[in-house]
Amino acid sequence: MPKQAIKDEAIKDAVVGSQYLAGTGESTQFDHHQVLQESDDLIRALFFSIVKETTGTEFFQSLKDVYDLSEKFHETQAQSDFDALTTKLGSLTNEETMMLASAFSNVLNLHNVSEHVASAMEERHARLDDIPRGPAKTTNGAIKGLVAKGISKEAIYKAITEQEVDLVLTAHPTQALRRSMLKNFGTVRQKLLDLQRARLSGYERAELLDSMASAIQSAWRTDEIRRTPPKPQDEMRAGLSYFNETVFEGLPKFCRRIDSALINQGLPRIPMEHSIMRFSSWMGGDRDGNPFVTATCTRDVVYLARITAVNLYFKAIQDLIFSLSMWRCTDAFRERARLLHERESAEHVYEMRKQRNYADFWRSLPMEEPYRVVLAEVRDKLYNTREALQAVIMGKAEALDPADDSIFRDKNQLLEPLMACHQSLIEVGDGTVADGSLLDLIRQVNCFGLSLVKLDIRQESDRHADAVDAITRHIGLGSYNDWDEEKKTEWLVSELKSKRPLVASDLECTDDVREVLDTFKMIAHLQEVCPGSLGTYVISMATVASDVLAVVLLQREMGGKMDQLLRVAPLFERLDDLNEGPNQLRRLFSIPWYHELIDGHQEVMIGYSDSGKDAGRMAAAWALYEGQENATKVADEFGVKLTLFHGRGGTVGRGGGPSHLAILSQPPATINGRLRVTVQGEVIEQNFGEHENCFHTLDLYTAATLEHSLAPPLAPSDEWRGAMATMSEVSCERYREIVFKTPEFNPYFLQATPGQELGALNIGSRPAKRKSNAGVTALRAIPWIFAWTQSRFHLPVWLGIAEGFQRVKEQGKLETLREMYRTWPFFRVTMDLIEMVLAKADPTVARLYEKELVEEQYHAFGEQLRKALRSTVDIVLEVTEHPDLLTSQTTNGGQGSINTLKDKLAMRSIYLTPLNIIQVENLKRLRDIEDGKVDTKGYVPVMPWAKQMLSLHVSKDYYHAAVSDTLIITMKGIAAGMQNTG
Amino acid sequence: MPKQAIKDEAIKDAVVGSQYLAGTGESTQFDHHQVLQESDDLIRALFFSIVKETTGTEFFQSLKDVYDLSEKFHETQAQSDFDALTTKLGSLTNEETMMLASAFSNVLNLHNVSEHVASAMEERHARLDDIPRGPAKTTNGAIKGLVAKGISKEAIYKAITEQEVDLVLTAHPTQALRRSMLKNFGTVRQKLLDLQRARLSGYERAELLDSMASAIQSAWRTDEIRRTPPKPQDEMRAGLSYFNETVFEGLPKFCRRIDSALINQGLPRIPMEHSIMRFSSWMGGDRDGNPFVTATCTRDVVYLARITAVNLYFKAIQDLIFSLSMWRCTDAFRERARLLHERESAEHVYEMRKQRNYADFWRSLPMEEPYRVVLAEVRDKLYNTREALQAVIMGKAEALDPADDSIFRDKNQLLEPLMACHQSLIEVGDGTVADGSLLDLIRQVNCFGLSLVKLDIRQESDRHADAVDAITRHIGLGSYNDWDEEKKTEWLVSELKSKRPLVASDLECTDDVREVLDTFKMIAHLQEVCPGSLGTYVISMATVASDVLAVVLLQREMGGKMDQLLRVAPLFERLDDLNEGPNQLRRLFSIPWYHELIDGHQEVMIGYSDSGKDAGRMAAAWALYEGQENATKVADEFGVKLTLFHGRGGTVGRGGGPSHLAILSQPPATINGRLRVTVQGEVIEQNFGEHENCFHTLDLYTAATLEHSLAPPLAPSDEWRGAMATMSEVSCERYREIVFKTPEFNPYFLQATPGQELGALNIGSRPAKRKSNAGVTALRAIPWIFAWTQSRFHLPVWLGIAEGFQRVKEQGKLETLREMYRTWPFFRVTMDLIEMVLAKADPTVARLYEKELVEEQYHAFGEQLRKALRSTVDIVLEVTEHPDLLTSQTTNGGQGSINTLKDKLAMRSIYLTPLNIIQVENLKRLRDIEDGKVDTKGYVPVMPWAKQMLSLHVSKDYYHAAVSDTLIITMKGIAAGMQNTG
Repeated sequence: MPKQAIKDEAIKDAVVGSQYLAGTGESTQFDHHQVLQESDDLIRALFFSIVKETTGTEFFQSLKDVYDLSEKFHETQAQSDFDALTTKLGSLTNEETMMLASAFSNVLNLHNVSEHVASAMEERHARLDDIPRGPAKTTNGAIKGLVAKGISKEAIYKAITEQEVDLVLTAHPTQALRRSMLKNFGTVRQKLLDLQRARLSGYERAELLDSMASAIQSAWRTDEIRRTPPKPQDEMRAGLSYFNETVFEGLPKFCRRIDSALINQGLPRIPMEHSIMRFSSWMGGDRDGNPFVTATCTRDVVYLARITAVNLYFKAIQDLIFSLSMWRCTDAFRERARLLHERESAEHVYEMRKQRNYADFWRSLPMEEPYRVVLAEVRDKLYNTREALQAVIMGKAEALDPADDSIFRDKNQLLEPLMACHQSLIEVGDGTVADGSLLDLIRQVNCFGLSLVKLDIRQESDRHADAVDAITRHIGLGSYNDWDEEKKTEWLVSELKSKRPLVASDLECTDDVREVLDTFKMIAHLQEVCPGSLGTYVISMATVASDVLAVVLLQREMGGKMDQLLRVAPLFERLDDLNEGPNQLRRLFSIPWYHELIDGHQEVMIGYSDSGKDAGRMAAAWALYEGQENATKVADEFGVKLTLFHGRGGTVGRGGGPSHLAILSQPPATINGRLRVTVQGEVIEQNFGEHENCFHTLDLYTAATLEHSLAPPLAPSDEWRGAMATMSEVSCERYREIVFKTPEFNPYFLQATPGQELGALNIGSRPAKRKSNAGVTALRAIPWIFAWTQSRFHLPVWLGIAEGFQRVKEQGKLETLREMYRTWPFFRVTMDLIEMVLAKADPTVARLYEKELVEEQYHAFGEQLRKALRSTVDIVLEVTEHPDLLTSQTTNGGQGSINTLKDKLAMRSIYLTPLNIIQVENLKRLRDIEDGKVDTKGYVPVMPWAKQMLSLHVSKDYYHAAVSDTLIITMKGIAAGMQNTG
Repeated sequence: MPKQAIKDEAIKDAVVGSQYLAGTGESTQFDHHQVLQESDDLIRALFFSIVKETTGTEFFQSLKDVYDLSEKFHETQAQSDFDALTTKLGSLTNEETMMLASAFSNVLNLHNVSEHVASAMEERHARLDDIPRGPAKTTNGAIKGLVAKGISKEAIYKAITEQEVDLVLTAHPTQALRRSMLKNFGTVRQKLLDLQRARLSGYERAELLDSMASAIQSAWRTDEIRRTPPKPQDEMRAGLSYFNETVFEGLPKFCRRIDSALINQGLPRIPMEHSIMRFSSWMGGDRDGNPFVTATCTRDVVYLARITAVNLYFKAIQDLIFSLSMWRCTDAFRERARLLHERESAEHVYEMRKQRNYADFWRSLPMEEPYRVVLAEVRDKLYNTREALQAVIMGKAEALDPADDSIFRDKNQLLEPLMACHQSLIEVGDGTVADGSLLDLIRQVNCFGLSLVKLDIRQESDRHADAVDAITRHIGLGSYNDWDEEKKTEWLVSELKSKRPLVASDLECTDDVREVLDTFKMIAHLQEVCPGSLGTYVISMATVASDVLAVVLLQREMGGKMDQLLRVAPLFERLDDLNEGPNQLRRLFSIPWYHELIDGHQEVMIGYSDSGKDAGRMAAAWALYEGQENATKVADEFGVKLTLFHGRGGTVGRGGGPSHLAILSQPPATINGRLRVTVQGEVIEQNFGEHENCFHTLDLYTAATLEHSLAPPLAPSDEWRGAMATMSEVSCERYREIVFKTPEFNPYFLQATPGQELGALNIGSRPAKRKSNAGVTALRAIPWIFAWTQSRFHLPVWLGIAEGFQRVKEQGKLETLREMYRTWPFFRVTMDLIEMVLAKADPTVARLYEKELVEEQYHAFGEQLRKALRSTVDIVLEVTEHPDLLTSQTTNGGQGSINTLKDKLAMRSIYLTPLNIIQVENLKRLRDIEDGKVDTKGYVPVMPWAKQMLSLHVSKDYYHAAVSDTLIITMKGIAAGMQNTG
């Protein structure tokens, strides 16, 4: 075949010689490792050729050398090769180092793309050849599994049609990659998949490679560092774009898939008006520690989401008008079309539609096309709704006009005509047409409504207390914050019962309080004019019952109608609040007024992040486990259906990991079909970035929830609880002893990690530091874990676990622990996570940080920590009975997911180690600058492109700019390298 | 693999057992016939199961029987089977017949889909396996062919970068299929292709079959008959939708393909600012015989096209903003971005963009992203342009405001910033990015400009004469129409030279004249405010030079500025005008004023349709051939570059057939790189319906034009010219003798074809009859050919040809004729066409029309005509030396395109014959009704669905409704069956 001249060699044999990427169509048998390897080779070949072309051979050569040295070190693990690497890197100029860091960061992201592609293809093959895979990650698999377990089909049907899974999209403070780079990598991912799907002609293949090169080059030439922090509306836009691109269409497709899974079991399909998935968002609603999220911002976000929804429906209706061209319908439907048809004269319609410049059908439609007549009217109303929403955003109108009946206000007004079409089509025998794109639309409307996502509001409990305090002081009741909890609840309850207002228009208060009150006023307003747009009010840092009552009171006081109050969910973040939570719930439910208000539904959010920070992973995980059990018990006492809202993190650090296992590891009877879970930052990109894994995500959550409710994991025995109690007590004790009581810890942490250089990373719209002082307690959970991940030591995850196990072992219960690992999902998940993190830990790198950055006097402490790491590894292997990290003793010839992770990690660390070395070096320089030990004037960049590049930095002296930009790039690169996909 | 239960059997083994449709991915070797057969079987299986489901088994059974009987007849061709078929059909009730007709009509359309798919796949395989195919249908092939012929690469490059191919989209009066059905069949086509491309899982295959079924069902259940005639704006919208869906993106892809074809030859790519293809349209500009095309309609259409263009650019710019995120640019470019950046304060930009609700980037962009700053401004201007255009359409503004500089007025204003981006990217080393989607956009802007298509204006010469006449009478010069041609030109020229106005505001005139003048006023206006939106002014029915001068004068008189006059193209439609054309051109060019005005460029349109009607095909083809030669000669005399504008038809009847051969068959030196050609009605759907053949169409026209200019076909020798002259004279004589002089012909035509029932088919916005009397001369060319196609006799194509050949043979020049066929493209194309039509002719069917519809006294005449048909077949085979129609003597084992056509036709006529029989039957009934021989009251429909269906018809008596609807359906079905795709 004609060689579309693939210019340079490396790309040529990465493609032509490859088994999967040659464009010969999809192959039948599939080798995960092989696919990964070939994709990696191709992408690296492309990237290298672009680097050579854009930066010249000199730089390219040193990139090649560093790559080869790093590759060598990873085969031999010899210290000498490690030193060869550090010297090579040490010999480069600042601008070369910076560029090198950027190159490795890009390669890492590209590598993630090929990991992504490999597992997407594996996914596909499993689907094509129908290979069973561990606990079913598909609903179909789950159903079959449950049937096989003898669970009746009615039970399965009942469960699946009643379950409520709510995915809550939240912006993530460390969303490292800028959207444009996400976009470019998305293009690479897309083309890489195309390369393996169908047979390609030479041209098609050449064009795919071209646009891969173009996307890689765009990413490579784009400034990685975000110079201006994003606004909440930007985050919201970003969130909305996933609905535009994948979720909106993915959902009905997914429902269709479940229908056929049910039909296979001889069950009916999901009822049309039930939506098995719903979506919520925090973007533009979460004002905890984010002063940019104001009342108007929330309003804008709500209206923007509604506009996006309307645009999506508008397009769907437009297509539907085309396809429902048939003339047969029921008499009732014909009557309806006739009334519409006669309501307006043909010209008036003609004029009106001409003005709107519809793509088609802008003449009034004839009666012989009844569905078009009805749908054309739906379209006109959608158009009006958009105009009305727009007018508010553009400031032309104050709010939506409640009396305007030419727009859609809540989703039933939109559903009704669609259901009428559906029913008429079925009755006249056009069922298959009805169950085509019309059914899809009906399901979309059911799921997304007019608001697309429900926006949660989140705020810290103190802000409400201050607001109530300002009120009580103004009306002379003294200071609310000085009352004890008893008096607070009494007063709050008495005020909730009385009809007398509390807030006068001449209330003096601080701007912060004013903002809180404006938000509640806005909530009341939005509940009135935009029904269905708001979700839950989440109180972060919740500790006592009055936190909840205060929010109910403030809602009411600022205009909220009793039947439009947002449900209020306390978020117990700290360990103590977590343990104390159930009691506060009891106090709440035992207030008759409140018990009546919630009408048998209460939502509680449990957050992982902070608790892991002050007690260590093991204690946190266990505390969470018990917390959920107790909360559910309390709720059952009062006949309250509890919905647990899981705030899950992105990277592993904060309890990430494969999520369906995470769901299955929840205590039995704490989910029963109701699950709210957050999807954060770039997990959103992974889970919804493109159609395939949007599908996969929905499938996974549905399957996991289904399984958990019908085949709940077994409850732990008392012996196991004892073991867990011992472990978490000992590990927590040890953790706090080291972290909070050992004097060397703090200085060691500040020197051995980029802990306090993190602030410079203006990642996300939310400021990094809570109220200010250096040191551990001041750090939010995210930066704390992030810091240890950078030096690949991951201390917060494993610290204290060894001592915990040791104690249980000394009680002669090693066997119990092993049994727990083998049979108890919760324990197994927790252990697998820890094991995985240990596998990522790299003491050599960690020691480098110590050697170069830590004062001599703390080296012993460092050594002590590394010894602790080793003993943690040993005892973990002892408990899991694995011969080595990430390998189980049954080797079965290269199949199975576990050890691919091992060499995934191996492949990444070739790119990671140089980044760590560069980071250590630049941390030293940055600290020297801040200690004033170097004069930065001495540095003049020699490379022509360097001067420009450094002038992007706000401070104008080049040395400082080079050092801190390089630092940021290494942080992004290492972060990219540490996340695990799939 | 799990059987996604494909419910009924026929579909199952049409899929599972098939070699190409089983979803196992694209196979390597390809058998056209096999693909066609399997697609046909699948589609028929789907359709039959839908019919059974929606109409019940009883009707389905009679459908099956008719199908089997028809199939049997085509194997045995036995009269007895034919009669069995007619009796079966005769035994059905009206409503069954109607439904049957509709079923066969649908099956035929679906069959066309599978023919379409088969040739698309063959196309693809040829591309994949790079098999050479006859004269290159790809530019790449053409280039290689020309290189092989020893033509220098510079010549090829020069030719390809200078050639101007202009495709003119015209609405077609017989666009039989309604857009919604086109849409549904498009979906079927799309899914059928997907079935054969990649490996599919069971689900994916099931879903493809589902949506095929849903689309087939929608088409089946949609009322085929268009109840209200379309408006010109509707046609225009339809035309525009092809740009939205395929052409806009297809063009740059095609350019990219040509680039690589050139690069393979070591040639540079096409220069960016040269567009190798342009697009024009008649929709909304062609007012010949269409009173709905008024001056405002033309204005609306122009603005609508501009809005569509702006929307397309808006989306492209939006994406471009995303990808050009890099910060490196030239200083000149940075300066430009800086000026923009400082022009507006950030809030003002923020507010403005917020109001416009852009999808992204509605904050003012930072200077570190210079390309985004520049492109964001382009976006804002595009937005303003759209708003301004909209305001005019909505009647809010009278016209675009010439002074408004926040909009784009002509394409260079849009090109300039894009070129600046392109140049800057190249200079800083981001060439590959520059040549990505930015280059595509630059090419789109060059090709489509702000107007998307250039709108031609077409009007009949008489209307201009009447307008000038009204003027001369008003100012007292007497009646212009009474002057001889000499005086007309003298006067027109003298007026064109003088500066004194002719038209006063108080001119009395008829509404028709008023409309003509308003159009010229509108043209002057549009040339001022919408530069580039109008193309050529075509004068239909042009005969003399004054026709052209009158149009120039009217343009000027109504406000046209000298440097903004539309070029005027005369359309010589009748044979005599065709022969007289060159003389009139000479008279025109010899007027110094005019010769100076056209500045060395003149466009002449040659239409096929009418001339074929009054002279027969052979004479018309030859007259056209010589007409072009002579016109080119005259033009060369005066140093005028002539652009020949070919009005090509849809169906073969009016000179269709594979178009690249058609181009190659033009006389040498009549094209030389300049070609305007019309693409009519559903040829548009075929050529641009989806990406693959949009690509194929552009490739084909480019290749053919390229070849024709560089390797022009050889000129005919005098001996050949003699033979042609003899043939066309004799065939023309014979043709006119039969058609215009034989008294039996007219009644035979009116009885043996649905000639005069055609008017009822309100196909297209244009009334069927020219000024009114029954009979041949009154019919426009289209209905005349259409009528003979219905009875599958195709008389206008072959009548008189036998006598022509006979005469040449008697001069002992049979061998010359054979040599002409073998070596002369023009003669070969003409003969292949005739042969193909003869292959479609079916005397058995034609005889049925005669037996049932023609009075006894004309049967002899009918027999005489059929004998003429047979002798035409014999002599055609004698000349072409083919053993049989459509088979050449070298059988080479199942490969090659010719004989697939043969059995394509065979497969179709299984569906066609029943339609013909039904048509004959209903023609008889309709004429009996009009002769009042039946009382229509007696008929009561029994089937439940029948009453409703018949009530769609405007006249309320069921018998008449049933008969005429059935008739229309058969006409559409047979039309669908007679077109040949690909």
